[in-house]
Amino acid sequence: VVSEVDSATSVASPPHVEGYGIGFVDDVQPRMLAKLGGLVVDLDRLERTGRLSALDLPEDLFRQTTLNRFMSFGHHVWREFDELLTELSIIKGSFDDSLFDLDTDPLYRPVGVADFCDFYASEHHAANMGRILRPGSDALPAAWRHVPLGYHGRNGTVVVSGTPVRRPAGMVATPDGPKYEPTNRLDLEVELGYVVATQSRRGRPVSVDEASEHIFGVVLVNDWSARDIQAFEYQPLGPFLGKSFQTSISPWVVPLSAIEKFRVDGPAQGPEVPDHLRAPQPRAFDIHLELSINSTVVSRPEARYLHWSPEQLVAHLTSNGAPLATGDLLATGTISGPERDSWGSLMELGWGGERPVQLDDGSTRAWLEDGDTVSIRAWCGDDGDSVDLGTVTGNIRPSSPGAGN
Amino acid sequence: VVSEVDSATSVASPPHVEGYGIGFVDDVQPRMLAKLGGLVVDLDRLERTGRLSALDLPEDLFRQTTLNRFMSFGHHVWREFDELLTELSIIKGSFDDSLFDLDTDPLYRPVGVADFCDFYASEHHAANMGRILRPGSDALPAAWRHVPLGYHGRNGTVVVSGTPVRRPAGMVATPDGPKYEPTNRLDLEVELGYVVATQSRRGRPVSVDEASEHIFGVVLVNDWSARDIQAFEYQPLGPFLGKSFQTSISPWVVPLSAIEKFRVDGPAQGPEVPDHLRAPQPRAFDIHLELSINSTVVSRPEARYLHWSPEQLVAHLTSNGAPLATGDLLATGTISGPERDSWGSLMELGWGGERPVQLDDGSTRAWLEDGDTVSIRAWCGDDGDSVDLGTVTGNIRPSSPGAGN
Repeated sequence: VVSEVDSATSVASPPHVEGYGIGFVDDVQPRMLAKLGGLVVDLDRLERTGRLSALDLPEDLFRQTTLNRFMSFGHHVWREFDELLTELSIIKGSFDDSLFDLDTDPLYRPVGVADFCDFYASEHHAANMGRILRPGSDALPAAWRHVPLGYHGRNGTVVVSGTPVRRPAGMVATPDGPKYEPTNRLDLEVELGYVVATQSRRGRPVSVDEASEHIFGVVLVNDWSARDIQAFEYQPLGPFLGKSFQTSISPWVVPLSAIEKFRVDGPAQGPEVPDHLRAPQPRAFDIHLELSINSTVVSRPEARYLHWSPEQLVAHLTSNGAPLATGDLLATGTISGPERDSWGSLMELGWGGERPVQLDDGSTRAWLEDGDTVSIRAWCGDDGDSVDLGTVTGNIRPSSPGAGN
Repeated sequence: VVSEVDSATSVASPPHVEGYGIGFVDDVQPRMLAKLGGLVVDLDRLERTGRLSALDLPEDLFRQTTLNRFMSFGHHVWREFDELLTELSIIKGSFDDSLFDLDTDPLYRPVGVADFCDFYASEHHAANMGRILRPGSDALPAAWRHVPLGYHGRNGTVVVSGTPVRRPAGMVATPDGPKYEPTNRLDLEVELGYVVATQSRRGRPVSVDEASEHIFGVVLVNDWSARDIQAFEYQPLGPFLGKSFQTSISPWVVPLSAIEKFRVDGPAQGPEVPDHLRAPQPRAFDIHLELSINSTVVSRPEARYLHWSPEQLVAHLTSNGAPLATGDLLATGTISGPERDSWGSLMELGWGGERPVQLDDGSTRAWLEDGDTVSIRAWCGDDGDSVDLGTVTGNIRPSSPGAGN
């Protein structure tokens, strides 16, 4: 229960805002929330007591169903807002009448997703997929070191953590030829997603230097995947129904400013990177991720292995003149490190089904089974100085009657 | 000037509504428009005079910036609405005070696009692309006859006809290696787009039989493409920046009900089609399209060659449980017939640059040049009994300074 934490404990070291989200009271009253110093603050209630009035923001700003309108005010406003909350947090009792009870009130999808792009930014993941799916060819696609490869996903199926995952049906290859049936190769993907706050101008690429002004924060992403459906359909147009049934995101958008101090050098980039995508180190974030299936930790991916930075993804996405929109979600693609214990999908951990993963209860998983619960959590730093990026979770449900069974 | 047409001429044969759109007065006052009997009717003005009150629709419904809210009321309401307008149209003078002047007031993007999917539904197009891009392999992808192949495009760059097309820059292969520069292979694609009106339930595939209840109408689509950018990036994740810079749609959404009588038998479908995608003939629409570059007609594609029907696209898209959303746009992909004079892209007409197209002014085009104007128009039927599907047009502008040049 969040209210057990006394805000007075935060006096020693003023906390940074660790997340913004949307909560609903009685499923109908939306309110914008902030997480800081172990508290979840109801910003709508805080605003009504006049403590946010210094910023002259619209009074209904904290009663929106998404963060989009707040984000669209731009980075100067987020920064001022962060600072005001931090100042309030060091005054004992500031938040006492504005706490949000996470035990009874649910959290909702924080962002109205405009366009959802999913990239392929982890070298170890891309190489693993190449070795499994296209043995005998080069492990990495030819363009991989030149530009961040990516594709557009389905924004309409991006849901908040906790939403059950209905096993999808689709066309898959079987010994008797292609059949429409529930997937037999249901997978997960451990990813981060960068949330775009402010639009850019059509026809004007956003440079690597300008990109951070457009990025509000980061969420955890589980891009559920049906590998058999994906294998059947993906040539030549890429992933489609094998991915579009559901993508889950964590409920808290962690401001990029809260984790800037955890930047570390990412992988070296070679001369293949064109001038307009070059970015100085430190490019990566030292975010630790942990993947669990039914409470067994099966992998510990590390975001520092991501080859491309959020700024490079933005610069590439807009390099053809396509504008950013408030609510664009740019996911990294599966994050995998060099060793098996840091791979971010069952496709890799089980090597295409050949080496099932062992769970603590003695069972094994080549692919997800009905009833399984998958959780991804993430954090930066250690006990003395850390930021919690939260959790994204989902429970697998049997396929719908009539959908291929 | 539309008002020269006397609505009395429509008494003999009551006109069907041929299109719904959004017009703006002085760029700020949005209004919903209907096209019928050669007139463009301002539905907001019509509503204010009480002539639409029988339907008990919200009074601000006709002052929205998109058709989405109107569409979301569902097919029973669209049908009643169509009938009421048809009844009004046979009463002389009904629309006299509610005409919209297309000469002075602009038309806007009619739909707030939720997810944009682009399919690959024309066999002749898919086979041409296979022969040009992957000579020596099967012309059609392995899955092509089993399911409609498709991918998600960028909804944020779907714009209305008339919006200029800024030549995009991107990474392309050159004799000196990959470089970021303005595309040298700018192309067009002649397509239709089906507009989804009503959402479906998550986890519940929409059957072929139910699909038509969700489809409001059809627009013309030009899916501008940079073939060199596309070639560099498309393995293994499919089209991305080579397509995402712009997609243009016609301003009028033509209700499917207006063209139902022009259904014709589409191409035969074999035993590869799974049960859940089977649809009876007539599946196709006898829509004639005409592609012009700078006033030279360069191709006459025919929609009856589309292999997959709109109902089959919907059934496939939702077959994995992904719900439809109001505003989803499902485009067919390039429409090409069997002969060169009916191919729907320069990629095909010029066979990858080898056989440039001749224009009336004596010049040739392997690819589009700055200053070119591309128009696609379409219609069903003939003089006595026809429906005009309108036009989608765009003028090519030089690339932005700083974007790769």
